[in-house]
Amino acid sequence: MIHIRPMTPADFEHFWPTFQAIVAARETYAFDPAMSQEQARQLWLELPLHTLVAEEDGQLLGSYYLKANAAGPGSHVSNCAYMVCEGARGRGVARLMCEHSQRLAHEQGFLAMQFNSVVASNEVAVALWHALGFETVGRLPHAYRHARLGLVDCLVMYKWLEQPQQPLLIGRKNIEAIVSRKRGR
Amino acid sequence: MIHIRPMTPADFEHFWPTFQAIVAARETYAFDPAMSQEQARQLWLELPLHTLVAEEDGQLLGSYYLKANAAGPGSHVSNCAYMVCEGARGRGVARLMCEHSQRLAHEQGFLAMQFNSVVASNEVAVALWHALGFETVGRLPHAYRHARLGLVDCLVMYKWLEQPQQPLLIGRKNIEAIVSRKRGR
Repeated sequence: MIHIRPMTPADFEHFWPTFQAIVAARETYAFDPAMSQEQARQLWLELPLHTLVAEEDGQLLGSYYLKANAAGPGSHVSNCAYMVCEGARGRGVARLMCEHSQRLAHEQGFLAMQFNSVVASNEVAVALWHALGFETVGRLPHAYRHARLGLVDCLVMYKWLEQPQQPLLIGRKNIEAIVSRKRGR
Repeated sequence: MIHIRPMTPADFEHFWPTFQAIVAARETYAFDPAMSQEQARQLWLELPLHTLVAEEDGQLLGSYYLKANAAGPGSHVSNCAYMVCEGARGRGVARLMCEHSQRLAHEQGFLAMQFNSVVASNEVAVALWHALGFETVGRLPHAYRHARLGLVDCLVMYKWLEQPQQPLLIGRKNIEAIVSRKRGR
Protein backbone atom coordinates (compact mmCIF):
# COMPACT_ATOMS: atom_id res chain seq x y z
CA MET A 1 0.00 0.00 0.00
CA ILE A 2 1.40 3.36 -0.99
CA HIS A 3 1.24 6.10 1.66
CA ILE A 4 1.61 9.80 1.06
CA ARG A 5 2.88 11.81 4.02
CA PRO A 6 4.92 14.96 4.71
CA MET A 7 8.63 14.80 3.84
CA THR A 8 11.09 14.95 6.74
CA PRO A 9 14.70 16.19 6.51
CA ALA A 10 15.79 12.53 6.73
CA ASP A 11 13.55 11.71 3.76
CA PHE A 12 15.26 14.39 1.75
CA GLU A 13 18.60 12.63 2.27
CA HIS A 14 17.10 9.53 0.68
CA PHE A 15 15.42 11.56 -2.06
CA TRP A 16 18.55 13.52 -3.03
CA PRO A 17 20.01 10.91 -5.46
CA THR A 18 16.67 10.86 -7.33
CA PHE A 19 16.56 14.66 -7.46
CA GLN A 20 20.17 14.85 -8.57
CA ALA A 21 19.77 12.25 -11.33
CA ILE A 22 16.59 13.85 -12.71
CA VAL A 23 18.10 17.33 -12.76
CA ALA A 24 21.41 16.09 -14.21
CA ALA A 25 19.55 14.34 -17.05
CA ARG A 26 18.32 17.74 -18.34
CA GLU A 27 15.23 16.24 -19.92
CA THR A 28 12.39 17.39 -17.68
CA TYR A 29 13.26 20.12 -15.12
CA ALA A 30 14.57 23.65 -15.58
CA PHE A 31 16.69 23.44 -12.43
CA ASP A 32 20.42 24.05 -12.29
CA PRO A 33 22.15 20.65 -12.76
CA ALA A 34 25.05 21.91 -10.63
CA MET A 35 22.79 22.66 -7.67
CA SER A 36 24.13 21.59 -4.27
CA GLN A 37 22.21 19.32 -1.95
CA GLU A 38 21.55 22.26 0.35
CA GLN A 39 20.17 24.40 -2.50
CA ALA A 40 17.99 21.51 -3.59
CA ARG A 41 16.73 21.07 -0.03
CA GLN A 42 15.77 24.75 0.06
CA LEU A 43 13.98 24.55 -3.28
CA TRP A 44 12.18 21.26 -2.68
CA LEU A 45 11.62 21.05 1.08
CA GLU A 46 11.93 24.51 2.64
CA LEU A 47 10.36 27.02 0.26
CA PRO A 48 7.18 25.20 -0.79
CA LEU A 49 4.04 25.30 1.29
CA HIS A 50 4.03 21.51 1.61
CA THR A 51 6.37 18.74 0.51
CA LEU A 52 5.25 15.14 0.64
CA VAL A 53 6.63 11.70 -0.09
CA ALA A 54 5.04 8.58 -1.51
CA GLU A 55 6.32 5.48 0.23
CA GLU A 56 5.54 1.81 0.49
CA ASP A 57 6.82 -0.53 3.21
CA GLY A 58 9.26 2.18 4.28
CA GLN A 59 10.67 2.58 0.77
CA LEU A 60 10.64 6.00 -0.87
CA LEU A 61 8.86 5.97 -4.24
CA GLY A 62 8.68 9.66 -5.04
CA SER A 63 8.00 13.16 -3.77
CA TYR A 64 6.08 16.27 -4.68
CA TYR A 65 5.72 19.82 -3.48
CA LEU A 66 2.80 22.23 -3.45
CA LYS A 67 3.12 26.00 -3.41
CA ALA A 68 1.38 29.12 -4.60
CA ASN A 69 2.31 29.91 -8.20
CA ALA A 70 2.13 33.66 -7.59
CA ALA A 71 1.42 36.08 -4.75
CA GLY A 72 -1.35 38.55 -3.96
CA PRO A 73 -3.97 38.57 -6.73
CA GLY A 74 -2.47 35.38 -8.19
CA SER A 75 -2.26 33.44 -4.94
CA HIS A 76 -5.32 31.29 -5.68
CA VAL A 77 -3.33 29.41 -8.33
CA SER A 78 -1.13 26.60 -7.04
CA ASN A 79 1.93 24.95 -8.52
CA CYS A 80 3.39 21.50 -7.98
CA ALA A 81 6.44 19.52 -9.00
CA TYR A 82 6.69 15.74 -8.88
CA MET A 83 9.62 13.33 -9.01
CA VAL A 84 9.44 9.53 -9.03
CA CYS A 85 12.39 7.37 -7.91
CA GLU A 86 13.90 5.28 -10.67
CA GLY A 87 12.88 1.89 -9.33
CA ALA A 88 9.28 3.02 -8.84
CA ARG A 89 8.49 4.18 -12.36
CA GLY A 90 5.62 2.73 -14.35
CA ARG A 91 3.55 2.00 -11.26
CA GLY A 92 1.30 5.04 -11.27
CA VAL A 93 3.15 6.92 -8.53
CA ALA A 94 3.08 10.22 -10.46
CA ARG A 95 -0.64 9.85 -11.06
CA LEU A 96 -1.21 9.09 -7.40
CA MET A 97 0.82 12.10 -6.28
CA CYS A 98 -0.90 14.42 -8.76
CA GLU A 99 -4.34 13.30 -7.65
CA HIS A 100 -3.27 13.78 -4.04
CA SER A 101 -1.81 17.21 -4.77
CA GLN A 102 -5.05 18.39 -6.36
CA ARG A 103 -7.04 17.42 -3.29
CA LEU A 104 -4.45 19.01 -1.00
CA ALA A 105 -4.41 22.20 -3.10
CA HIS A 106 -8.19 22.41 -2.98
CA GLU A 107 -8.20 21.90 0.77
CA GLN A 108 -5.58 24.63 1.18
CA GLY A 109 -7.93 27.03 -0.60
CA PHE A 110 -6.35 27.07 -4.03
CA LEU A 111 -8.76 27.34 -6.95
CA ALA A 112 -6.49 26.25 -9.79
CA MET A 113 -3.21 24.46 -10.48
CA GLN A 114 -0.65 25.55 -13.04
CA PHE A 115 2.42 23.80 -14.43
CA ASN A 116 4.63 26.52 -15.85
CA SER A 117 7.03 24.51 -17.89
CA VAL A 118 6.25 20.95 -18.95
CA VAL A 119 8.91 19.91 -21.46
CA ALA A 120 6.95 19.04 -24.60
CA SER A 121 9.15 16.04 -25.40
CA ASN A 122 8.21 14.50 -22.02
CA GLU A 123 5.24 12.79 -23.64
CA VAL A 124 4.49 10.50 -20.73
CA ALA A 125 4.06 13.45 -18.39
CA VAL A 126 2.04 15.48 -20.90
CA ALA A 127 -0.33 12.55 -21.49
CA LEU A 128 -0.71 11.95 -17.77
CA TRP A 129 -1.51 15.57 -16.95
CA HIS A 130 -4.04 15.63 -19.79
CA ALA A 131 -5.62 12.44 -18.45
CA LEU A 132 -5.88 14.11 -15.04
CA GLY A 133 -7.78 17.08 -16.44
CA PHE A 134 -5.03 19.59 -17.18
CA GLU A 135 -5.29 21.58 -20.38
CA THR A 136 -2.39 22.81 -22.42
CA VAL A 137 -2.99 26.57 -22.30
CA GLY A 138 0.34 27.75 -23.68
CA ARG A 139 3.37 26.71 -25.69
CA LEU A 140 6.80 28.32 -25.18
CA PRO A 141 8.89 27.86 -28.34
CA HIS A 142 12.38 26.49 -27.73
CA ALA A 143 12.24 27.33 -24.04
CA TYR A 144 14.20 24.22 -22.92
CA ARG A 145 17.69 23.02 -23.84
CA HIS A 146 17.16 19.26 -23.79
CA ALA A 147 20.32 17.21 -23.20
CA ARG A 148 19.68 14.97 -26.25
CA LEU A 149 17.16 16.84 -28.39
CA GLY A 150 18.49 20.40 -28.23
CA LEU A 151 16.00 23.26 -28.05
CA VAL A 152 12.49 21.96 -27.42
CA ASP A 153 9.20 23.66 -26.55
CA CYS A 154 7.66 23.81 -23.11
CA LEU A 155 3.96 23.65 -22.37
CA VAL A 156 1.99 25.64 -19.83
CA MET A 157 -0.68 23.38 -18.36
CA TYR A 158 -3.58 24.48 -16.18
CA LYS A 159 -6.54 23.04 -14.36
CA TRP A 160 -9.38 24.66 -12.48
CA LEU A 161 -9.82 22.56 -9.34
CA GLU A 162 -13.20 21.12 -8.57
CA GLN A 163 -14.56 20.00 -5.27
CA PRO A 164 -12.65 16.78 -4.59
CA GLN A 165 -14.56 13.49 -4.51
CA GLN A 166 -12.58 12.26 -1.50
CA PRO A 167 -11.58 15.23 0.61
CA LEU A 168 -8.37 14.84 2.57
CA LEU A 169 -8.56 15.27 6.30
CA ILE A 170 -5.65 17.66 6.35
CA GLY A 171 -5.08 20.69 8.50
CA ARG A 172 -2.83 23.50 7.37
CA LYS A 173 -0.29 22.63 10.05
CA ASN A 174 -0.91 18.96 10.47
CA ILE A 175 -1.01 16.76 7.44
CA GLU A 176 -1.79 13.25 8.36
CA ALA A 177 -3.70 12.06 5.35
CA ILE A 178 -2.81 8.75 3.89
CA VAL A 179 -3.83 7.85 0.42
CA SER A 180 -3.72 4.21 -0.43
CA ARG A 181 -3.51 2.49 -3.71
CA LYS A 182 -3.35 -1.18 -4.48
CA ARG A 183 0.09 -2.45 -5.24
CA GLY A 184 0.96 -3.00 -8.86
CA ARG A 185 -2.28 -1.51 -10.07
CA MET B 1 16.52 63.26 -22.51
CA ILE B 2 15.63 60.04 -20.77
CA HIS B 3 18.53 58.01 -19.40
CA ILE B 4 18.46 54.39 -18.38
CA ARG B 5 21.00 53.36 -15.77
CA PRO B 6 21.38 50.85 -12.92
CA MET B 7 19.18 51.40 -9.88
CA THR B 8 20.93 52.33 -6.64
CA PRO B 9 19.56 51.67 -3.13
CA ALA B 10 18.75 55.40 -2.92
CA ASP B 11 16.76 55.13 -6.16
CA PHE B 12 14.72 52.36 -4.61
CA GLU B 13 13.65 54.70 -1.81
CA HIS B 14 12.25 57.06 -4.44
CA PHE B 15 10.71 54.20 -6.40
CA TRP B 16 8.99 52.60 -3.41
CA PRO B 17 5.79 54.76 -3.51
CA THR B 18 5.33 53.83 -7.18
CA PHE B 19 5.88 50.14 -6.44
CA GLN B 20 3.52 50.29 -3.47
CA ALA B 21 0.74 52.05 -5.37
CA ILE B 22 0.94 49.69 -8.35
CA VAL B 23 0.88 46.58 -6.18
CA ALA B 24 -1.89 47.96 -3.93
CA ALA B 25 -4.05 48.67 -7.00
CA ARG B 26 -4.21 44.90 -7.74
CA GLU B 27 -4.75 45.47 -11.43
CA THR B 28 -1.45 44.44 -13.01
CA TYR B 29 0.99 42.58 -10.72
CA ALA B 30 0.66 39.29 -8.84
CA PHE B 31 2.69 40.58 -5.91
CA ASP B 32 1.52 40.63 -2.31
CA PRO B 33 -0.09 44.05 -1.69
CA ALA B 34 0.97 43.82 1.97
CA MET B 35 4.64 43.42 1.07
CA SER B 36 7.07 45.47 3.18
CA GLN B 37 9.54 47.88 1.66
CA GLU B 38 12.38 45.49 2.52
CA GLN B 39 10.62 42.56 0.82
CA ALA B 40 9.98 44.73 -2.23
CA ARG B 41 13.63 45.78 -2.30
CA GLN B 42 14.67 42.12 -2.28
CA LEU B 43 12.25 41.24 -5.06
CA TRP B 44 12.95 44.23 -7.27
CA LEU B 45 16.56 45.23 -6.58
CA GLU B 46 18.42 42.32 -4.97
CA LEU B 47 17.24 39.12 -6.59
CA PRO B 48 17.18 40.09 -10.29
CA LEU B 49 20.28 39.98 -12.44
CA HIS B 50 19.96 43.70 -13.24
CA THR B 51 17.63 46.47 -12.11
CA LEU B 52 17.57 49.77 -13.96
CA VAL B 53 15.83 53.11 -13.73
CA ALA B 54 14.62 55.50 -16.40
CA GLU B 55 15.23 59.09 -15.38
CA GLU B 56 15.17 62.55 -16.87
CA ASP B 57 16.79 65.62 -15.35
CA GLY B 58 17.29 63.69 -12.13
CA GLN B 59 13.64 62.70 -11.92
CA LEU B 60 12.69 59.04 -11.68
CA LEU B 61 10.28 57.98 -14.44
CA GLY B 62 10.23 54.23 -13.99
CA SER B 63 12.20 51.08 -13.37
CA TYR B 64 12.60 47.56 -14.69
CA TYR B 65 14.41 44.40 -13.79
CA LEU B 66 15.91 41.62 -15.88
CA LYS B 67 16.44 38.08 -14.67
CA ALA B 68 16.51 34.51 -15.93
CA ASN B 69 13.02 33.06 -16.09
CA ALA B 70 14.25 29.59 -15.17
CA ALA B 71 17.50 27.83 -14.29
CA GLY B 72 19.65 25.21 -15.98
CA PRO B 73 18.12 24.08 -19.29
CA GLY B 74 15.71 27.04 -19.17
CA SER B 75 18.28 29.72 -18.34
CA HIS B 76 18.39 31.10 -21.89
CA VAL B 77 14.92 32.59 -21.40
CA SER B 78 14.83 35.96 -19.64
CA ASN B 79 12.07 37.67 -17.72
CA CYS B 80 11.44 41.35 -17.02
CA ALA B 81 9.05 43.48 -15.03
CA TYR B 82 8.45 47.19 -15.65
CA MET B 83 6.84 49.94 -13.60
CA VAL B 84 6.27 53.53 -14.67
CA CYS B 85 5.83 56.34 -12.12
CA GLU B 86 2.41 57.93 -12.13
CA GLY B 87 3.48 61.34 -13.42
CA ALA B 88 5.44 59.79 -16.29
CA ARG B 89 2.71 57.72 -17.90
CA GLY B 90 1.73 58.17 -21.55
CA ARG B 91 5.21 59.26 -22.56
CA GLY B 92 6.54 55.99 -23.89
CA VAL B 93 8.64 55.13 -20.84
CA ALA B 94 7.45 51.51 -20.76
CA ARG B 95 8.24 51.13 -24.45
CA LEU B 96 11.67 52.62 -23.94
CA MET B 97 12.41 50.34 -21.00
CA CYS B 98 11.17 47.25 -22.85
CA GLU B 99 13.31 48.02 -25.89
CA HIS B 100 16.28 48.59 -23.58
CA SER B 101 15.62 45.37 -21.71
CA GLN B 102 15.57 43.32 -24.91
CA ARG B 103 18.96 44.66 -25.93
CA LEU B 104 20.33 44.11 -22.43
CA ALA B 105 18.94 40.57 -22.34
CA HIS B 106 20.49 39.79 -25.70
CA GLU B 107 23.83 41.15 -24.60
CA GLN B 108 23.67 39.08 -21.42
CA GLY B 109 23.33 35.98 -23.58
CA PHE B 110 19.61 35.37 -23.28
CA LEU B 111 17.89 34.02 -26.40
CA ALA B 112 14.27 34.77 -25.52
CA MET B 113 12.12 36.85 -23.19
CA GLN B 114 9.00 35.63 -21.44
CA PHE B 115 6.30 37.46 -19.50
CA ASN B 116 4.61 34.86 -17.31
CA SER B 117 1.51 36.71 -16.28
CA VAL B 118 0.28 39.75 -18.20
CA VAL B 119 -3.18 40.57 -16.86
CA ALA B 120 -5.46 40.34 -19.90
CA SER B 121 -7.49 43.38 -18.86
CA ASN B 122 -4.32 45.50 -18.95
CA GLU B 123 -4.96 46.27 -22.60
CA VAL B 124 -2.39 49.04 -22.88
CA ALA B 125 0.39 46.70 -21.80
CA VAL B 126 -0.81 43.82 -23.99
CA ALA B 127 -0.94 46.11 -27.03
CA LEU B 128 2.50 47.52 -26.28
CA TRP B 129 4.13 44.11 -25.88
CA HIS B 130 2.51 42.97 -29.12
CA ALA B 131 3.81 46.08 -30.86
CA LEU B 132 7.28 45.25 -29.56
CA GLY B 133 7.21 41.78 -31.07
CA PHE B 134 5.89 39.64 -28.22
CA GLU B 135 3.41 36.92 -29.06
CA THR B 136 0.65 35.72 -26.80
CA VAL B 137 1.59 32.05 -26.42
CA GLY B 138 -0.71 31.17 -23.56
CA ARG B 139 -3.85 32.16 -21.69
CA LEU B 140 -4.42 31.29 -18.03
CA PRO B 141 -8.15 31.31 -17.29
CA HIS B 142 -9.14 33.33 -14.23
CA ALA B 143 -5.58 33.39 -12.91
CA TYR B 144 -5.80 36.94 -11.49
CA ARG B 145 -8.14 38.44 -8.89
CA HIS B 146 -8.51 41.97 -10.24
CA ALA B 147 -9.49 44.58 -7.66
CA ARG B 148 -12.38 45.90 -9.79
CA LEU B 149 -13.11 43.20 -12.36
CA GLY B 150 -12.87 40.04 -10.26
CA LEU B 151 -11.31 36.94 -11.79
CA VAL B 152 -9.64 37.77 -15.09
CA ASP B 153 -7.32 35.81 -17.39
CA CYS B 154 -3.58 36.24 -17.63
CA LEU B 155 -1.54 35.97 -20.80
CA VAL B 156 1.83 34.35 -21.26
CA MET B 157 3.82 36.44 -23.75
CA TYR B 158 7.05 35.41 -25.42
CA LYS B 159 9.61 36.75 -27.86
CA TRP B 160 12.65 35.17 -29.42
CA LEU B 161 15.31 37.87 -29.27
CA GLU B 162 17.04 38.89 -32.46
CA GLN B 163 20.39 40.50 -32.88
CA PRO B 164 19.78 44.06 -31.66
CA GLN B 165 20.03 46.92 -34.13
CA GLN B 166 21.84 49.13 -31.65
CA PRO B 167 23.89 46.96 -29.32
CA LEU B 168 24.40 48.32 -25.85
CA LEU B 169 27.96 48.79 -24.72
CA ILE B 170 27.34 47.00 -21.50
CA GLY B 171 29.61 44.71 -19.59
CA ARG B 172 28.23 42.10 -17.26
CA LYS B 173 29.53 43.95 -14.23
CA ASN B 174 29.46 47.51 -15.45
CA ILE B 175 26.35 48.85 -17.05
CA GLU B 176 26.85 52.33 -18.26
CA ALA B 177 24.65 52.43 -21.30
CA ILE B 178 22.47 55.41 -21.78
CA VAL B 179 19.50 55.28 -24.05
CA SER B 180 18.11 58.60 -25.11
CA ARG B 181 14.74 59.51 -26.39
CA LYS B 182 13.40 62.88 -27.35
CA ARG B 183 11.30 64.52 -24.73
CA GLY B 184 7.54 64.41 -25.19
CA ARG B 185 7.77 62.13 -28.17
